[in-house]
Amino acid sequence: MRTDGRQWDEIRPTTMTTGVNKYAEGSVLIEVGATKVICTATVDEKVPPFMKGQGRGWVTAEYAMLPRATQARNQRESAKGKLTGRTMEIQRLIGRALRSVVDLHALGERTITLDCDVIQADGGTRTTSITGAFVALCLAVDKLRASGHIPETRKHPITDYLASLSVGVVNGHVLLDLNYEEDSKAIVDMNVVMTGAGKLVEVQGTGEEAPFTRQEMNAMLDVAEQGIRRMRALQREALGAAGAAIPEASETPHA
Amino acid sequence: MRTDGRQWDEIRPTTMTTGVNKYAEGSVLIEVGATKVICTATVDEKVPPFMKGQGRGWVTAEYAMLPRATQARNQRESAKGKLTGRTMEIQRLIGRALRSVVDLHALGERTITLDCDVIQADGGTRTTSITGAFVALCLAVDKLRASGHIPETRKHPITDYLASLSVGVVNGHVLLDLNYEEDSKAIVDMNVVMTGAGKLVEVQGTGEEAPFTRQEMNAMLDVAEQGIRRMRALQREALGAAGAAIPEASETPHA
Amino acid sequence: MRTDGRQWDEIRPTTMTTGVNKYAEGSVLIEVGATKVICTATVDEKVPPFMKGQGRGWVTAEYAMLPRATQARNQRESAKGKLTGRTMEIQRLIGRALRSVVDLHALGERTITLDCDVIQADGGTRTTSITGAFVALCLAVDKLRASGHIPETRKHPITDYLASLSVGVVNGHVLLDLNYEEDSKAIVDMNVVMTGAGKLVEVQGTGEEAPFTRQEMNAMLDVAEQGIRRMRALQREALGAAGAAIPEASETPHA
Amino acid sequence: MRTDGRQWDEIRPTTMTTGVNKYAEGSVLIEVGATKVICTATVDEKVPPFMKGQGRGWVTAEYAMLPRATQARNQRESAKGKLTGRTMEIQRLIGRALRSVVDLHALGERTITLDCDVIQADGGTRTTSITGAFVALCLAVDKLRASGHIPETRKHPITDYLASLSVGVVNGHVLLDLNYEEDSKAIVDMNVVMTGAGKLVEVQGTGEEAPFTRQEMNAMLDVAEQGIRRMRALQREALGAAGAAIPEASETPHA
Amino acid sequence: MRTDGRQWDEIRPTTMTTGVNKYAEGSVLIEVGATKVICTATVDEKVPPFMKGQGRGWVTAEYAMLPRATQARNQRESAKGKLTGRTMEIQRLIGRALRSVVDLHALGERTITLDCDVIQADGGTRTTSITGAFVALCLAVDKLRASGHIPETRKHPITDYLASLSVGVVNGHVLLDLNYEEDSKAIVDMNVVMTGAGKLVEVQGTGEEAPFTRQEMNAMLDVAEQGIRRMRALQREALGAAGAAIPEASETPHA
Amino acid sequence: MRTDGRQWDEIRPTTMTTGVNKYAEGSVLIEVGATKVICTATVDEKVPPFMKGQGRGWVTAEYAMLPRATQARNQRESAKGKLTGRTMEIQRLIGRALRSVVDLHALGERTITLDCDVIQADGGTRTTSITGAFVALCLAVDKLRASGHIPETRKHPITDYLASLSVGVVNGHVLLDLNYEEDSKAIVDMNVVMTGAGKLVEVQGTGEEAPFTRQEMNAMLDVAEQGIRRMRALQREALGAAGAAIPEASETPHA
Repeated sequence: MRTDGRQWDEIRPTTMTTGVNKYAEGSVLIEVGATKVICTATVDEKVPPFMKGQGRGWVTAEYAMLPRATQARNQRESAKGKLTGRTMEIQRLIGRALRSVVDLHALGERTITLDCDVIQADGGTRTTSITGAFVALCLAVDKLRASGHIPETRKHPITDYLASLSVGVVNGHVLLDLNYEEDSKAIVDMNVVMTGAGKLVEVQGTGEEAPFTRQEMNAMLDVAEQGIRRMRALQREALGAAGAAIPEASETPHA
Repeated sequence: MRTDGRQWDEIRPTTMTTGVNKYAEGSVLIEVGATKVICTATVDEKVPPFMKGQGRGWVTAEYAMLPRATQARNQRESAKGKLTGRTMEIQRLIGRALRSVVDLHALGERTITLDCDVIQADGGTRTTSITGAFVALCLAVDKLRASGHIPETRKHPITDYLASLSVGVVNGHVLLDLNYEEDSKAIVDMNVVMTGAGKLVEVQGTGEEAPFTRQEMNAMLDVAEQGIRRMRALQREALGAAGAAIPEASETPHA
Repeated sequence: MRTDGRQWDEIRPTTMTTGVNKYAEGSVLIEVGATKVICTATVDEKVPPFMKGQGRGWVTAEYAMLPRATQARNQRESAKGKLTGRTMEIQRLIGRALRSVVDLHALGERTITLDCDVIQADGGTRTTSITGAFVALCLAVDKLRASGHIPETRKHPITDYLASLSVGVVNGHVLLDLNYEEDSKAIVDMNVVMTGAGKLVEVQGTGEEAPFTRQEMNAMLDVAEQGIRRMRALQREALGAAGAAIPEASETPHA
Repeated sequence: MRTDGRQWDEIRPTTMTTGVNKYAEGSVLIEVGATKVICTATVDEKVPPFMKGQGRGWVTAEYAMLPRATQARNQRESAKGKLTGRTMEIQRLIGRALRSVVDLHALGERTITLDCDVIQADGGTRTTSITGAFVALCLAVDKLRASGHIPETRKHPITDYLASLSVGVVNGHVLLDLNYEEDSKAIVDMNVVMTGAGKLVEVQGTGEEAPFTRQEMNAMLDVAEQGIRRMRALQREALGAAGAAIPEASETPHA
Repeated sequence: MRTDGRQWDEIRPTTMTTGVNKYAEGSVLIEVGATKVICTATVDEKVPPFMKGQGRGWVTAEYAMLPRATQARNQRESAKGKLTGRTMEIQRLIGRALRSVVDLHALGERTITLDCDVIQADGGTRTTSITGAFVALCLAVDKLRASGHIPETRKHPITDYLASLSVGVVNGHVLLDLNYEEDSKAIVDMNVVMTGAGKLVEVQGTGEEAPFTRQEMNAMLDVAEQGIRRMRALQREALGAAGAAIPEASETPHA
Repeated sequence: MRTDGRQWDEIRPTTMTTGVNKYAEGSVLIEVGATKVICTATVDEKVPPFMKGQGRGWVTAEYAMLPRATQARNQRESAKGKLTGRTMEIQRLIGRALRSVVDLHALGERTITLDCDVIQADGGTRTTSITGAFVALCLAVDKLRASGHIPETRKHPITDYLASLSVGVVNGHVLLDLNYEEDSKAIVDMNVVMTGAGKLVEVQGTGEEAPFTRQEMNAMLDVAEQGIRRMRALQREALGAAGAAIPEASETPHA
């Protein structure tokens, strides 16, 4: 039994509230347990200089935490004058993951920037950011199609759903969707990003305290897949309620 | 008549939701119209090096906007590698204003940092931050007293209420609590910070487009005072609901 | 009686020496008591990118202190690698104040940069900078008109005089033009910028140690106005001696 | 057949030359094909402030490339004034991986810094850095034991061997140890770090161009394990020739 | 004949005005032709951490130019966020040169910082800074001795005079003390720093446009020596007028 | 006798290995005693913005040391976020020296960047960098001519050989080519850069511990010239072996 009463393979109570920002082309407040992230999508009708004239768009992400998102206050990166390695690693991951389900040609020469700002952190902020950013991205793309900026006759730029969860080994047990307390006791920590069709986009497993076996890895991937399927259902619901229809690839049988 | 239907001397619908952050010693989400700011108070049991051993505490503030708090996305200051002049000016103002109603000796050798993070901006973010930060500060001080960190027998560190509003001249008319659209058309813009007793703490008036007369200045100060009194009532309500009793100086008759 | 023998409403001995820099389009060494600032105006025949093609010019300012301008040596901001909040706040103020008396269309698409470098500081460096920068600006504009870069038939880009002084409350008394010693004992500190016609351009009052009443504010504004009128006379004299005729708005009756 | 004539499951010609730096406590020039990295270990007899007095040591890593290590010259990060996200991500990975096979208590309160400087890059610089840094680390620890700084009676601080290789999917085929040309055509890219006993320390798989299945992942892990075993043999040889005996955990049967 | 009417071996009109800063322990405004530099000496009763407890003092220098010291305005280094290579090279040179005539043990554990701020530049700013900084340094040391901070019975910390001049080859002629116009046409440029006794402290010769022979070098050193002797006489005069007696090493016969 | 057995006028064992980098247009590993520097030349078919359209090329240099090139590890300048003054001074020197033997018109509108990365340092890193960078530069220019990018009929862009050595005064004796130990005991330190024809390009002499006489200076220049002649012979050999024929100016008789 876990301290918050969950089963080992159970995700935390999760809500996705769309439209929380009156200016952004897409926005969602995603809450996974006590972890809360505001994700906004901004459409910019141009691409970085090195991509100009290629007919392809770009999707990128930025990530930050409010100073008091955590138990102890963190110094602002703006005050430090630079981003930490952790922040850069996370925002590179978010952008890379999202691009894996976007057809950049179908998007056209424009950039969508996903801002993931962690309002409160209780473990899993990077996986929650990916799951939420996907929703904000879909809302922005849907708006571009509705407004004719992307012709509806063109292939939909979103090729499949995308969601992410963490999984780890704590006290010898595989646990899904670690909260902060569990995460700090985990000897293995793995972040998994999967498409709606059940394919892997990113697998980042780290034996912080002890190396792990292939069996443990497989057990973690199995339960991550179940949880991510649940997250996808919640994304589908939130997007549906917001009137956005997103294509889904047909699920591949278990690998 | 104003675009949002308000009278010239009317503040926007305002709510203050306390306890929005599970870690901070004090927190509030303040919404003034479409302007939304999360204010958190962090208590640190030490003071800056230059103040050590003097038996006095310190109160300081930091201010930031999420990139998409505004109509057009702003580059993060962490990515720029430095704070803008505007940000520095605002956070210096917030800290200075709050210290004017804190007895630093009564606070004892500890620092309270107020983080004001603008989630959505529609004019008046600095005045809203001051008004909200005062509430978060009071909650943190109240907690320090309740827990015995500040003895209840000692003088209360908060000496009076503090709130702030903007006022300006638009199309020849004095208007209270400008929203973004009004602010961008104002030829005079003034931010006023006042104590509960009705005394001035900060007056910053700028004739951006045209200089102004003493009469105009007096008219602006008069209506600002009325609005700030309304803000104080909302602060008292929010603090009362959160169980925090804050001392008030007796109001001085109109100057 | 003040430590330097002045009356409460008396400004310090003030001189303005024009032409102190052989390269700048306008320059002045302004000395107000022991506060000495070199102000130079540089004309650049282009405007910032965001203003291109609008037919309007731009006026901006930079401010700095030599490391040993003060009693204790300050670290250079170039060595720190960034500007302090104080510097940014001051240079934004100087630029904003100057622009209030410049017709940017009449100036034409060019930028004038006012550099205010404090050689020695004894209180009032920001107000002294504004007063001196106005003189340097007028000299540069006069040169542009004399050389035909700005046609003499066009409206004069300077719309009125501009000067600034500080005023404060020390030991319960309102004092004009505070020196450093007085400034550090002041419980209220106010910087006032006024046009030649007696209108307000900036009012920045701060109750550093104690809030202040509307009566105190009015008393401070009254005496600031008298002092600024005296500064304007000295500016008129210095500009006249340098052969520059600057238009003046007719004075408005006391507000 | 690969462009350099290798089999799909074959690593590139690899050499490890120890003692290439006359000052460092441990050093190696590792060459994997045309990828060349100088790894040096520096022993510092103190730990970061936050670890003081806990009786534990620290192992950290830094990574950089010479500007012309690559086909096109890269701007120096020292000239840019900051580390790129890629550099930070890599050096965090190297340090984390090395720490997984170090008993920090047995190391004692000292820090070992591994500098990995890429002299020439042809794919796999991060995995080559890990493999080389492990050798430099072992040499430094061996020296500390030989000199009595770490008593020989104490448990050896190195708990097992550690090496790393990349593996990817190119044109539908799993390939081991990608060179630059292959890496730029890979649709899946995975970096694997393993202990001598065959356990996983880090698995970072990315579907840059297309998501991947669990079967593909398993095939990649299988071949990576074979290659890493070969790298370990070369490490053992190089360390043996340098007279350093490093303990090895007994290999776990295939998971 | 030179454009300013000087002989080839003649220095420009030079004045040294001491006591120009009311706070600094030593100060001088040195004017060499149109080049004007304010040099201030600041005494700090401690040394850099790495020198603590060794009974020796430290002398260091900083150098900067006001933005409009030159024909075209330069961006402030504080705004750029870093010092240019040129500035660093010059301030390292000034500090090194001054230390060559200071007995750091006799100085005692304190730091003297020489700030050289160029108010107007017309060639030779680095050599003028050295000559002026020496005067400011002597005034500060004299004050330390007069006040008893350095016992008068102890050896004088200044071991000899120090001055500097530039010399170059322009249109095939050796010229002493180049102004800006001459400097920009020089094919060889040399800065010479000499002690009062006529010994060399720094020789920095650069064939910017063409390499130079040993004969040319000798001719340049000969005339530099004559000019520096004249500068020393002016330093002696200025220091004498300020009441500071500085020891001089007996001059060595021409080398 | 010197600690490494050399005569006072003897250079250290020196090797120049060309072609050490498979990507660079020119590369050499130069070893002077235990000092090892990798020099690479990168050709970029454009010039800095301020030189565009003038038909002239540009030659520039960058210099860095690996963190453990020295006895004690140095913090990376990329981690510090800025270049030290020493680095900037050295890379300015290298670029300036190389340009003195390049005809920038004959080079055509392209930039050659010389990267000098010190792998191991034992004194003389800046002079060794100049000597090695000249070889890399020649190789790159030769390649540009061989490939027709610079027509072979055009004047050769290299006008003469260039090499550099240090010389100093240790324990009263002039010593050529100081190693680190000697350098740290030297009271005078001089870096000399000379052309193949025996002309001076740079002379930088510093009396770190004591000023020096003209006689000492002449003795140092004499021996430096002999050593540089030896370095030139080694450069000629290395370039010849690499098939690059570089023009030489006829030697001038001793000056």
